[in-house]
Amino acid sequence: MDNQAIVELIQNEDYFLITSHVDPDGDNIASQLGLLSIFKELGKHAVIVDQDATPVAYQFLLNDDVIYHQLPPDTRYDYSFVLDAANLDRVGDSVVALIQQGNGVINIDHHTSNTRFGTYNWVEPEACATAIVVYKLAKALGVTLTPEMATRLYAGIITDTGRFRYTNTTLETFEVSADLVRHGANPSYVATQIYDQEPISKLRLLVKVLSSLQSAADGKIHWLQITKSCYDETGSNVYESENMINYATSIKGTKLAILFREMENSDRIRVSFRSKGFVNVDKLAQCFGGGGHAAAAGARIPGTLAEVQQKVLTEACKWV
Amino acid sequence: MDNQAIVELIQNEDYFLITSHVDPDGDNIASQLGLLSIFKELGKHAVIVDQDATPVAYQFLLNDDVIYHQLPPDTRYDYSFVLDAANLDRVGDSVVALIQQGNGVINIDHHTSNTRFGTYNWVEPEACATAIVVYKLAKALGVTLTPEMATRLYAGIITDTGRFRYTNTTLETFEVSADLVRHGANPSYVATQIYDQEPISKLRLLVKVLSSLQSAADGKIHWLQITKSCYDETGSNVYESENMINYATSIKGTKLAILFREMENSDRIRVSFRSKGFVNVDKLAQCFGGGGHAAAAGARIPGTLAEVQQKVLTEACKWV
Repeated sequence: MDNQAIVELIQNEDYFLITSHVDPDGDNIASQLGLLSIFKELGKHAVIVDQDATPVAYQFLLNDDVIYHQLPPDTRYDYSFVLDAANLDRVGDSVVALIQQGNGVINIDHHTSNTRFGTYNWVEPEACATAIVVYKLAKALGVTLTPEMATRLYAGIITDTGRFRYTNTTLETFEVSADLVRHGANPSYVATQIYDQEPISKLRLLVKVLSSLQSAADGKIHWLQITKSCYDETGSNVYESENMINYATSIKGTKLAILFREMENSDRIRVSFRSKGFVNVDKLAQCFGGGGHAAAAGARIPGTLAEVQQKVLTEACKWV
Repeated sequence: MDNQAIVELIQNEDYFLITSHVDPDGDNIASQLGLLSIFKELGKHAVIVDQDATPVAYQFLLNDDVIYHQLPPDTRYDYSFVLDAANLDRVGDSVVALIQQGNGVINIDHHTSNTRFGTYNWVEPEACATAIVVYKLAKALGVTLTPEMATRLYAGIITDTGRFRYTNTTLETFEVSADLVRHGANPSYVATQIYDQEPISKLRLLVKVLSSLQSAADGKIHWLQITKSCYDETGSNVYESENMINYATSIKGTKLAILFREMENSDRIRVSFRSKGFVNVDKLAQCFGGGGHAAAAGARIPGTLAEVQQKVLTEACKWV
């Protein structure tokens, strides 16, 4: 079993790099910081290097720790932990270059589509979040959960389950959450930090996004769009639109929800898909070079907003 | 202990009325139906009678059961269970009249302000939902949880904690939720039924509500309003506005969120308050003849929208 090899590697080695995928979400940041807490507790040296910036909503998890965006000078690392990434491309070129210089890669993830790219792989597709896998790693290492560790891992669970809403929410989700609360995670504090520190610009953006609502396939598809000008007009940014697709998902009769977003400095459209169980959007996104989970996936598709919408909606109508 | 007396009363008696407060919310409906499941399991005769209609979002919990709005003819009941009501006025005049004809009242609740109005009272102010108290009653009765019971009680927990978001969310919340999932509650199914069956009219109403956003007290208060015409213009109704106050709560820097709603056929304004921990809105609402919990409360205040806004905002500014 790779799991035991990973435990022994952590016990025997001292210098680690931690990273995760581009476009960071809550589970990404939470799992990395949770693993960093474990390494600190064990007296190991570890550094987190991510290609992309850390979204404001998750910066409260940092405490005194730092997420770097390039390797600090004279940092030693022998092994690299890649968290929450289905494949190595997802971590971004600059970080892939760092990983290739180490002695090996440890792949810790929960994506069904994970390619087992690591020297060692601990992948649990049934886990609702990579934070759950990191929790199990802590248990396997015999590490006692600290309040910091518990808070970080709890944040990963709530963001990747949409606060216990998505189909990945299981008995394990609640059992682990209970244990994290038992060890000091404060549910309302974490939820308040993540969900109740919104800039007013985000509500202004939401008004624009909701006003763009359209339907296809007799209401089985509902879709929303965000043009570049929406951000300027509301003073908001792309991170503030992260979960707005949920409004399309929430409509009665929707089987498939789609959010189209124009991207800054790119000729691609960022397309997000959500399913209410009927459609496997991981497979649908793969038609356009993307991927994700059965219930939540995405792709970045070349073309104008109108071109991509036509192409995606034509394909999507065949799936509902 | 009243708790043991309540257990024995259920064991010894056979005919029960179940009711709850007017303006039903999720925990109200869920707790009543959860208790009905328990009575069915024990072979007892029980009928639910509520003064107000059951919101559409919770009707999936009914299965083959019925919530009546007046007592069916020739229905025998010897004792009345009043759930989730801080005082007897909250159940509405028509149901109070029914309760007074029985042999006694059993008061099952979790409101801090509960007046212990029952012949027997099982009130747990630390419980996140009345569903938790009903769960404990099931345990005390030795009833094995059925999937129907578990689903109903789980729905009460998620609605009264805002999906594990409010300050009432504790270790007990997760331990009980885990046990309910273990006994057949399906978290994503329940969340989908409650939160993802929204009429498009609700999103249209949301656009109007968000557009009404204003602030007071240097951004420590954010408030929203809904006029009667909003409902007509969007084809929506008052039930669809139930949780829209959360958008005001979610803004960074908000200590107190307020939602003002004009009511059909009434010269009162329905005012909802939410606190992020700094203000005790139960006490604030009491200034206007209302009440609730420390973090969520409400009142119905006579006057025009403008008059009530001025009066409430003047008082509220003293509290932040």
